[in-house]
Amino acid sequence: VRVGDLPTPALVVDAGALAANLDTMAHALPGARLRPHVKAHKCSELAREQIARGHPGLTVATPREALGLAAADLGTDLLVANQVLDPVRLRALTECGARVTVAVDSDATVAAAVAVGIREVLIDVSVGMPRCGCEPADAARIADRARAAGVAVRGIMGYEGHVVGVPDRAERAAGVAAATEILLAAHAAVGGDVISAGGTTTYDLHTVATEIQAGSYALMDTAYGAFGLPFTVAVGIVATVLHVGARHAVADCGLKALGMDHGDPTIDDADVWFCSDEHVTFASRHPLTVGDRVVVRPAHVDPTIAMHEHLHVAEAVHPDADVLASWPVDLRGWDPPDTRR
Amino acid sequence: VRVGDLPTPALVVDAGALAANLDTMAHALPGARLRPHVKAHKCSELAREQIARGHPGLTVATPREALGLAAADLGTDLLVANQVLDPVRLRALTECGARVTVAVDSDATVAAAVAVGIREVLIDVSVGMPRCGCEPADAARIADRARAAGVAVRGIMGYEGHVVGVPDRAERAAGVAAATEILLAAHAAVGGDVISAGGTTTYDLHTVATEIQAGSYALMDTAYGAFGLPFTVAVGIVATVLHVGARHAVADCGLKALGMDHGDPTIDDADVWFCSDEHVTFASRHPLTVGDRVVVRPAHVDPTIAMHEHLHVAEAVHPDADVLASWPVDLRGWDPPDTRR
Repeated sequence: VRVGDLPTPALVVDAGALAANLDTMAHALPGARLRPHVKAHKCSELAREQIARGHPGLTVATPREALGLAAADLGTDLLVANQVLDPVRLRALTECGARVTVAVDSDATVAAAVAVGIREVLIDVSVGMPRCGCEPADAARIADRARAAGVAVRGIMGYEGHVVGVPDRAERAAGVAAATEILLAAHAAVGGDVISAGGTTTYDLHTVATEIQAGSYALMDTAYGAFGLPFTVAVGIVATVLHVGARHAVADCGLKALGMDHGDPTIDDADVWFCSDEHVTFASRHPLTVGDRVVVRPAHVDPTIAMHEHLHVAEAVHPDADVLASWPVDLRGWDPPDTRR
Repeated sequence: VRVGDLPTPALVVDAGALAANLDTMAHALPGARLRPHVKAHKCSELAREQIARGHPGLTVATPREALGLAAADLGTDLLVANQVLDPVRLRALTECGARVTVAVDSDATVAAAVAVGIREVLIDVSVGMPRCGCEPADAARIADRARAAGVAVRGIMGYEGHVVGVPDRAERAAGVAAATEILLAAHAAVGGDVISAGGTTTYDLHTVATEIQAGSYALMDTAYGAFGLPFTVAVGIVATVLHVGARHAVADCGLKALGMDHGDPTIDDADVWFCSDEHVTFASRHPLTVGDRVVVRPAHVDPTIAMHEHLHVAEAVHPDADVLASWPVDLRGWDPPDTRR
């Protein structure tokens, strides 16, 4: 099968670019120094490639991702880097056969974990982003509470989400340094072996984190592609040209195939005008014919992948390239199929 | 089951508000004068409610939506208001047992329909939006081409997508009037019984269209909610508060649960700060506790619904309300399950 034979919109990854991204990161952060974040691709087969490069543990954002990885026998050391209160999902984590560590940041999240028998947690500490994570001064108290309930505290995590989008590398480094001060103090108060932090744009700026939670580096997107990182955009959506007008063309890749929070996608050699539910309208700088394939590059990889059922691995993201494998995007949604209404 | 017992994020619709929206539209555009657009909800059970109100035909954006409606025995008169070139999907439309009419706007789309035995088409005419639709002057030629190949031409369609987002009603009316001139000329050239056009914000501004393709009116969203239409926002995403900080709170409804092309969602009595993959960060004007439920209102309904597996119909979009039914969002994706890799 060629890429151009796939039904469209088709999510396609360049096998060579993916391998290069994975290899580059594995060289920079070998073994357990990287804990790849699976939320970026939601694909067990891609996670298997990451583990094959020597990283034993994985990061996930949802119980569903952890359960799917466990089912795929990739559950050596899974970190749910997110707060979970749902007792059904938490209990499933204790029964899935994987080693699962859950982030906690409050009495309520500790209590929820304790109630179902979660055995290991990290204390999630806010390092400046207004999202989850306890106040640093509260970390020791929460850790004590977990330990008093018989739960092992493996250490801390703190994601500098307010820093990762800063384009200037020196500014990012300064942001990481500020976050590191907080991580160090919290770790001194909490103890444990793990200091988990970081992302694709800060993977090489951390000095005390024991593991980096990067995920986007595998597939990349146009937003991170502009950061001058040693990772290239490996993913594109192959779309069919449905209409060619005097000044514009239309292809079948729209809002239901694209994460739009970072803005419009790009098309090589073209100006994208706008997206509709099932369409992208664009002006091409070379002539197109109805039926041609074009490659649409998403601005934000994570929510884009979550809209697709398959990730087709090909020799290139090009209509003439051969498809080498079609991996299910099997970790979508919030519960495994048919386990819950 | 109460709404507050649903795993989150949970897509919930207010049964009374939905019924009122459907009834209001059925009163304004009875019977075949409305051809409800299913792309807005992708849910056969909701389509069944629309048909039960007297509208025999439905509009769809994808072959997958048509095939699902046919499988649900809702295929009396389905219009694929979109260009389709894929021969596998087009052929499936001819074999699904439903009456299916396909939009065509070029020699290539006519040829694709003819090749697999599609029996009925509409000529899709551009009325000013740069998307699909032939130039009006080309409509007669394309219709002749279809008829010469033995395909019935039922008439024309022309969607004023450049007008539906204009907030001022008088300006929208002027835009519809301009589009109507084009529709009239194209219809005179093409013939047939059908002039299909319109959407939720222009449903009562058309004078010559024989049928209106409105879809958003059923569930609505915050963008169309600001238009002063006689339809209310019936849908919300119930999310669990995972974290409460000094100035902000976080709930589990993020970029993977929300169409973001119209911007951030809203939360009653709160200011939304930003969304991340699995989170919305917001400042509430009343005190919250970890574990509370909040209702997140999406800015754009169509891509939001496409991210969820179930639409829970409840007495209200409120944690204490009873869930009356849970409808599968069964028309997601681009191919029926397991029919294609």
